[in-house]
Amino acid sequence: MPRQNNAARHDSSATAVNPLESLSRLLAGDMKKVNALILQNMQSSVPLIPQLASYLIAAGGKRIRPLLTLACTQMYGGDMTRAHRLAAAVEFIHTATLLHDDVVDESGERRGQDTANLIFGNQASVLVGDFLFSRSFQLMVQEGSLDVLRILSDAAAIIAQGEVMQLSTTGNLETTMDNYIDVIRAKTAALFAAACEVGPVVADQAPAAAQAMAEYGMNLGIAFQIIDDTLDYAGGQEKIGKTVGDDFREGKMTAPVLIALQRADAGEKAFWARTIKDKNQEKTDLAAAQGILARHDAINLSMAMARSYAQKARLALAEAPDGEIRALLDDIVTFTIEREF
Amino acid sequence: MPRQNNAARHDSSATAVNPLESLSRLLAGDMKKVNALILQNMQSSVPLIPQLASYLIAAGGKRIRPLLTLACTQMYGGDMTRAHRLAAAVEFIHTATLLHDDVVDESGERRGQDTANLIFGNQASVLVGDFLFSRSFQLMVQEGSLDVLRILSDAAAIIAQGEVMQLSTTGNLETTMDNYIDVIRAKTAALFAAACEVGPVVADQAPAAAQAMAEYGMNLGIAFQIIDDTLDYAGGQEKIGKTVGDDFREGKMTAPVLIALQRADAGEKAFWARTIKDKNQEKTDLAAAQGILARHDAINLSMAMARSYAQKARLALAEAPDGEIRALLDDIVTFTIEREF
Repeated sequence: MPRQNNAARHDSSATAVNPLESLSRLLAGDMKKVNALILQNMQSSVPLIPQLASYLIAAGGKRIRPLLTLACTQMYGGDMTRAHRLAAAVEFIHTATLLHDDVVDESGERRGQDTANLIFGNQASVLVGDFLFSRSFQLMVQEGSLDVLRILSDAAAIIAQGEVMQLSTTGNLETTMDNYIDVIRAKTAALFAAACEVGPVVADQAPAAAQAMAEYGMNLGIAFQIIDDTLDYAGGQEKIGKTVGDDFREGKMTAPVLIALQRADAGEKAFWARTIKDKNQEKTDLAAAQGILARHDAINLSMAMARSYAQKARLALAEAPDGEIRALLDDIVTFTIEREF
Repeated sequence: MPRQNNAARHDSSATAVNPLESLSRLLAGDMKKVNALILQNMQSSVPLIPQLASYLIAAGGKRIRPLLTLACTQMYGGDMTRAHRLAAAVEFIHTATLLHDDVVDESGERRGQDTANLIFGNQASVLVGDFLFSRSFQLMVQEGSLDVLRILSDAAAIIAQGEVMQLSTTGNLETTMDNYIDVIRAKTAALFAAACEVGPVVADQAPAAAQAMAEYGMNLGIAFQIIDDTLDYAGGQEKIGKTVGDDFREGKMTAPVLIALQRADAGEKAFWARTIKDKNQEKTDLAAAQGILARHDAINLSMAMARSYAQKARLALAEAPDGEIRALLDDIVTFTIEREF
């Protein structure tokens, strides 16, 4: 499998400290409380619920969204007890989205890796997702801020719209780069934005601070998703933790494909039409797609696009109070666009 | 198809005035505003969302849940403008539940009738359900009452638990009548209860009033679902609007089956094990099941069970202020247990 990453980047990230881990360490006491709330709130007298939820939640993941909520609250001097519940609520919305995102149509193809869906079935995944989604609203109600409820219910509606939008762009070669950015802004970045925005809101800051943190989260989220979509063609499978080529097999229209498609000759157009539009793929097609992307420098151009959003995130962050947390949030931007997993 | 209804019941309900229609007429101005809010809030820049949502919502249905919210608010002298948004929110939760309830596993059988799922697929149904669910919380946040948000987010979590519980009772001959009541209390009655409870809460009444209306809605909802499950074996197909035998084909453990199973001889036990547990059904099995239910008087016993919950609903309603609305809410109880559709 061809690797598009250059050696320099590889070396720097191999030696660099992971700022997500540094932030987790700095906020270890708070993260512990968030994890306890997550465990406690996924309990239910119906055994399948904790069983399925723990499959996803115990699997861990980076917990980046709750960490952002904690960091943005701490940075603005907000009440961390309030932030704990909200961070758990944010993670539950994310987990519910993951569960629902994996639901397949009868005609649909499953992903390469094991999903909760593959093990427990569509129905259980949907219903446990609904449960976690409801729990996240119960946590917000306990917390008692209508402003926070507004931010997160708005984000939830936007996420659902983004996911539906993505359905209509999948396999659709008419998809523009603007359509793509709209999709990832909604399906991914809106929750990053909300996770950050609640920090200054909990800390009773002026609207400008909330706006700045929403901007930070939104642009970080867009950069994060562009990189994710780029790694789907260029990542090292052992690091990425997911199967390279998932998006290609599902016919998703993502940044690297859109860039290559803009530059495609007639033969390449026919290739994308067959593989993405008609989903008529052969074993060698992923490698062929990667070859076409390399020919048009699509991986690097896609990374450059991510960097432009990363830059916007950094600008917004400059509005926040100076200190260790701000420095780490800045490092997270860099880390996001340099990661290989 | 054998009809289990006796002629007397048929005649009385044929001539009786439908109290749901009377209540709709009495609250016509309010229902109009609720319908406008429903239409307005299912709009989205993503065309598939209003398309799929309107398939379900325009199909109408009885709108019984929003009607209960309006009636209970009006009865306690609450602000009807607030009730409009909450009634729309309640209907959105119901619609989202319907969409998610119809999601099938790859191995699963679809229902006889056309569901949104059959036309639009699992993925779209799940995601549009998520959108409507988020919208319902946005409406509640606009309305601005944390008490109402607590009631409805609690109900949403209970509904999801009920649906998951139902997954584990389906095809399970060990299911007890208590398990069944737990399932329908959660999956159906909790939303009826919440729809009624918000009325006195909006009207700033004492907790006892909210408690009484929650009791009314809960017991009405249980009676409603028992009748629904009974009609699945005994209803007239043209009236019921759904295919008789759906529950049987899906292997659902409902009141009439549980009653017949308690009284089953060895041959009947083997029949239920083959048809419900192993889902090994032949064309004549529905008629055979209906024959067994008739032999054990299971339809009438099931109706009697529904009537006992109806009686509890009426008792709780006696706490409410006397007047035309209370009389209609009382008639709705009677109508629910006497309906044939």
